[in-house]
Amino acid sequence: MTTSSRRLSPLKWTDVRIDDAFWSPKIEVNRATTLPREYELCKSTGRINAFKLDWKPGQPNPPHIFWDSDVAKWIEAAAYSVATRPDPALEAMLNDVADLVASAGRPDGYLNCHYTVVEPGKRWSNLRDCHELYCAGHLIEGAVAHFQATGKRTLLDALCRYADYIDSVFGTEPGKIRGYCGHEEIELALVKLYRATGQNRYLNLAKYFIDERGRQPHYFDLEAQVRCEDPTKHWTGGKYEYLQAHLPVREQPEVVGHAVRAMYLLSGMADVAAETGDATLLAACRRLWNDTAARKMYVTGAVGALHNGEAFGRPYELPNESAYAETCANIALAFFAHRMVQLEADAKYADVMERALYNGMLSGVSADGMKFFYVNPLASAGGHHRQDWFGCACCPPNIARLLASMGQYIYSTSDQAAYVHLYIGSETKLNIAGRAVAIRQQTDYPWAGRVELVIDADAPAKFDLMLRIPAWCRKHRLALNGKPLKAPIAKGYAQIRRTWAGGDVVELSLDMPIERVAAHPAVADNAGRVALQRGPIVYCLEQCDNRADVRAMLLPDSAKLTARFDRKLLGGAVVIEGTGRTPDADDGSLYRDARSLKTTPVKFKAIPYFLWDNRKPGKMTVWLPRG
Amino acid sequence: MTTSSRRLSPLKWTDVRIDDAFWSPKIEVNRATTLPREYELCKSTGRINAFKLDWKPGQPNPPHIFWDSDVAKWIEAAAYSVATRPDPALEAMLNDVADLVASAGRPDGYLNCHYTVVEPGKRWSNLRDCHELYCAGHLIEGAVAHFQATGKRTLLDALCRYADYIDSVFGTEPGKIRGYCGHEEIELALVKLYRATGQNRYLNLAKYFIDERGRQPHYFDLEAQVRCEDPTKHWTGGKYEYLQAHLPVREQPEVVGHAVRAMYLLSGMADVAAETGDATLLAACRRLWNDTAARKMYVTGAVGALHNGEAFGRPYELPNESAYAETCANIALAFFAHRMVQLEADAKYADVMERALYNGMLSGVSADGMKFFYVNPLASAGGHHRQDWFGCACCPPNIARLLASMGQYIYSTSDQAAYVHLYIGSETKLNIAGRAVAIRQQTDYPWAGRVELVIDADAPAKFDLMLRIPAWCRKHRLALNGKPLKAPIAKGYAQIRRTWAGGDVVELSLDMPIERVAAHPAVADNAGRVALQRGPIVYCLEQCDNRADVRAMLLPDSAKLTARFDRKLLGGAVVIEGTGRTPDADDGSLYRDARSLKTTPVKFKAIPYFLWDNRKPGKMTVWLPRG
Repeated sequence: MTTSSRRLSPLKWTDVRIDDAFWSPKIEVNRATTLPREYELCKSTGRINAFKLDWKPGQPNPPHIFWDSDVAKWIEAAAYSVATRPDPALEAMLNDVADLVASAGRPDGYLNCHYTVVEPGKRWSNLRDCHELYCAGHLIEGAVAHFQATGKRTLLDALCRYADYIDSVFGTEPGKIRGYCGHEEIELALVKLYRATGQNRYLNLAKYFIDERGRQPHYFDLEAQVRCEDPTKHWTGGKYEYLQAHLPVREQPEVVGHAVRAMYLLSGMADVAAETGDATLLAACRRLWNDTAARKMYVTGAVGALHNGEAFGRPYELPNESAYAETCANIALAFFAHRMVQLEADAKYADVMERALYNGMLSGVSADGMKFFYVNPLASAGGHHRQDWFGCACCPPNIARLLASMGQYIYSTSDQAAYVHLYIGSETKLNIAGRAVAIRQQTDYPWAGRVELVIDADAPAKFDLMLRIPAWCRKHRLALNGKPLKAPIAKGYAQIRRTWAGGDVVELSLDMPIERVAAHPAVADNAGRVALQRGPIVYCLEQCDNRADVRAMLLPDSAKLTARFDRKLLGGAVVIEGTGRTPDADDGSLYRDARSLKTTPVKFKAIPYFLWDNRKPGKMTVWLPRG
Repeated sequence: MTTSSRRLSPLKWTDVRIDDAFWSPKIEVNRATTLPREYELCKSTGRINAFKLDWKPGQPNPPHIFWDSDVAKWIEAAAYSVATRPDPALEAMLNDVADLVASAGRPDGYLNCHYTVVEPGKRWSNLRDCHELYCAGHLIEGAVAHFQATGKRTLLDALCRYADYIDSVFGTEPGKIRGYCGHEEIELALVKLYRATGQNRYLNLAKYFIDERGRQPHYFDLEAQVRCEDPTKHWTGGKYEYLQAHLPVREQPEVVGHAVRAMYLLSGMADVAAETGDATLLAACRRLWNDTAARKMYVTGAVGALHNGEAFGRPYELPNESAYAETCANIALAFFAHRMVQLEADAKYADVMERALYNGMLSGVSADGMKFFYVNPLASAGGHHRQDWFGCACCPPNIARLLASMGQYIYSTSDQAAYVHLYIGSETKLNIAGRAVAIRQQTDYPWAGRVELVIDADAPAKFDLMLRIPAWCRKHRLALNGKPLKAPIAKGYAQIRRTWAGGDVVELSLDMPIERVAAHPAVADNAGRVALQRGPIVYCLEQCDNRADVRAMLLPDSAKLTARFDRKLLGGAVVIEGTGRTPDADDGSLYRDARSLKTTPVKFKAIPYFLWDNRKPGKMTVWLPRG
């Protein structure tokens, strides 16, 4: 249906069945606990019933400008879930919500609760601040997922009508509004709608929104003047870095501003570049990717260091305790990475995707699936905890939709190759060069580095099996049908070219020692410190496991570290143990001669970062001073 | 005039003549540059002419609620200056401003620009937020200083009338308002006025404001209700820790909230305790002092770690780069310390006073006296710089009044002793047990630890000369008239009891090696780090002196450090030099195996913290990882 210029195509979430000791329980908790819980909260807070459009002026609880997007992400998450883990009750809820949302479409196609009932007549009057096209984007994503999961067209049709209406309103043609949304999202959603429907106008509209962004005369200036506002009086000062609209996207030298917006924009840019082959857009994606991954990303794969503006900081500005690192931003980094790996077939993108998924994304939800981090700091004095819900509830349904669609991140295909990006127990059927190929993957990853892949083809099929060798892995071994195998590495993937026959077994062993990771020297907050990582998992010290103050403990370079699978730890996880040094009992003074500050050895235990704050509240730290 | 329960009495600023290689040039810059410059800014911004009371509704630039205090502090500073360093031009300016301010008194004594012309009829309607009594307090301090400096009573009389009027408005008697100011200041000012005039009612009014604070029913709740506001909707949530009004002051367990307010309150509490002998108030001062000095103070003697609320953080929460550490708070810590040392005759207070004066106070002004820090971080990425002035311009005149009155911090007397708290070249005349005693102090402190004191008495006088042995000093030597002397240490003071004759010479030598200072282990931001201190001076690395990135450099415990007087550095200062280790040229990666992060030796230079940001902009850090 598309003529993508991507090197790779991801599989659909529906085409991969996950059966994995690490992920399956999490996906199951997501289905059984998180999704029903989020439904109840969307219901009890009025978000779902807002689509009845029966709110009247003077009544309490007017539909908020963000609300549509929360329900939309829940629809998307529930759709992914019911298609991969049948659940008639959830599916019934989903279809009811989808029908209700579809019913809120106006005769002209417009579909937005807030502007329909709270500010009628003010449509498109404040694109800069009011998330109107952002909500449309999430509704489109939800509608596409609902259609693909259930085959039902009601919601998709409603959103196509809305998209058609938006297409009639926005653009460069005379009489159209030359605007775009302050919070990017609709760009990537329109590409999804294009891919689902084959209608070029949606791709063109996505391209328009991207191309128009940041041009002069500045739309947000003009729009503010129409509202009789001085655009320089906006809290951004009218400079628009916050919304990535300070310059046309192709001219932006570095990634700036609100991190979720930036990552959604870049995902949309990558999508449009993939569909159009636009080299300048791809160059911008690469440049802003490099700035993100090489200068502005936490070791947990989290982005957006600053509370102020939920924004990217300066290069290498990565404070630990005061990190913002919004769950949505970490998820969106995985979205962007996933798109870049299809475009470039380079494992460096999948490395970052893995880092974000196993650390900064997973930390966003509690082990029981009931509570959520909005903010994901890398150190805590003990006061930071997951919450049931948020007034601005973007993160909880974002995690839900990610977990429910994990299948799509594992494999890709090209004309002549099958790519394995992530090591997750799973089964899938691929089509490579006209051949149906089945892959069955078994592994204890991320706790152990052994992966077994069984390849089944209907008939002998010649293609490359491309297995990602993670950047964290310094030594790996391959075997084919029990015999050691050497394979060249192409852009981070071990390339096994072969005519595959039924039942070929590939074994990959990734050495997974405990690593002390150092940050770039310019990360001032981590000077003289190391983080512990094993495989893709970043560790932290949590107070409830440790006698010594975890934020005062020193880790000598010479300290021996051992990894042990702790069956009892929140469903089982590998912990790291060793002996650090802790300052002796304090003498009460705030400052003293450093020579008098003696240390004594102390045993410590580190747990995976994503598991912290699931037990007793207390201090936490990721980066340890090298004692 | 007073029956103080203080153990010690400070000397008046007029009774001490400073002649010191370190302080005299700073005090001279304050007189010659800072005070005229601040006058011009108070004039050009409308602050001085506001006292003409000719602003009319609809005109621009209405007198702001803080403005009176800025002019008042300038009056106070100029008064101290003209009395110790004659300057007819400055004195003429001062007298003009004092007359103008005095002329703004209303027939009933009230004196406040904002409420007189901008919100007439709204006096005392929002004590919580509007600084009305705070401004009165600063005007009183200015008036007392002006009277003491010039003998002119005009301004003092105007402020006595205002204080009498305030006394008629506030109190527990029927018909009076049972309120107090959201920003403490008037309490300590009223004690000054009491000491200057001998009128008990001012002391009683100060005591009332202190006693009433934080009682239930809460005045700020009641006041908000009168304004038809929900007190819980105030940004403090109506809990009032921010304003130290969450509990009666004697019941407050720890120092909280806005740091300047807290330090001014505690200074006023110490003053009232001194004058009344109130043991419960003194106990609260001690408790809150200990919390400040042992858990919430930067190594620079700065307090108020958080930007949010300009407030104290949690115990040991002392972030470096994001430190607030407002100049006014650091100055106010010195005020509080100065009062406590009189009450308790314990050098631990003078140690903190010295720390604040030589580091966190002095950093507030540029070497040329033209620019000011409001915020005094202990690390910078290069973007933090002193400014000419501030919309809320509390800090510049606060530094000016402190520098102009340095004389009062050096000596104290008791019935039988002369105390030397600070080592600053100076001359003074004391009265001890009825004897006139002259002390002449010569020293190169803080760059060298040798101090010579010549004691002259009219007739042989028996008293204790008490010389502070700073807590940072591990070894000291004393000599009397050239002969080594051993003296007992009493609360941190070397006690030399003797019948002093004319021309006795005491020599004190304080060993002043370079120290590596460690913070309490609970200061998470300084785990594994040291700061460099020599004598009272805390050092920092500034980028313009160093080849290596100063925020990435490691300082091995084994590195030899040398001190050298650098004559060319901003008037001359001791610098510290040594060899640290710097990470090798980066490989571009944000995270990597720590073993691959090699370091190489690099020479470095550290300068006194208070001198940073006087040359080329760049990075700065105080705390160095022990590499």
